[in-house]
Amino acid sequence: MDSFYKYHVFFCLNQREPGAERPSCANCNAQEMQEHAKKRVKKLGLAGPGQVRINKAGCLDRCELGPALVVYPEGVWYTYVDESDIDEIVDSHLVNGKIVERLKIDQ
Amino acid sequence: MDSFYKYHVFFCLNQREPGAERPSCANCNAQEMQEHAKKRVKKLGLAGPGQVRINKAGCLDRCELGPALVVYPEGVWYTYVDESDIDEIVDSHLVNGKIVERLKIDQ
Repeated sequence: MDSFYKYHVFFCLNQREPGAERPSCANCNAQEMQEHAKKRVKKLGLAGPGQVRINKAGCLDRCELGPALVVYPEGVWYTYVDESDIDEIVDSHLVNGKIVERLKIDQ
Repeated sequence: MDSFYKYHVFFCLNQREPGAERPSCANCNAQEMQEHAKKRVKKLGLAGPGQVRINKAGCLDRCELGPALVVYPEGVWYTYVDESDIDEIVDSHLVNGKIVERLKIDQ
């Protein structure tokens, strides 16, 4: 079955309580990076059915390896530091279908 | 590649501004139903890596067909009304791998 979105990307935006033992993706600019990805995909004309959807999500439970995002339907997980990492994920994976190995979280 | 989660389920919990033209999944008990699914999966011993993750998500942009959820990596979309629908999706799809055709949103 074809996927409704060719690439459906979920950014963890979880913010834990202060003093929590596990890290929070929200403390690593996750929301800003999600917005940046969404804008870039839109600017490239790739947003929408049959193409790409950039989504917000709650805790994806990859906290220690984050900030985390996942690209479905492949189920490829990434971490990132800044906008240049997001740009590389968008331009390589979402535009050209080529996984960015250096940012990939191991399964 | 194996998916980190066998079934990764995202519930749209989006709440639009009052008076918005498009409907909001949050107005159809989406949060309550997401929590119900999460508890049921946990109770069945299915939560965790290699098994099932029940996630919160922002707008999945299937507003007019919602309340909406999507099961990855298959990319199967569902709508639901109440806990009995959620139970059927959990017990049939997530436990037995059998799609619940009557609740499926067409691609």
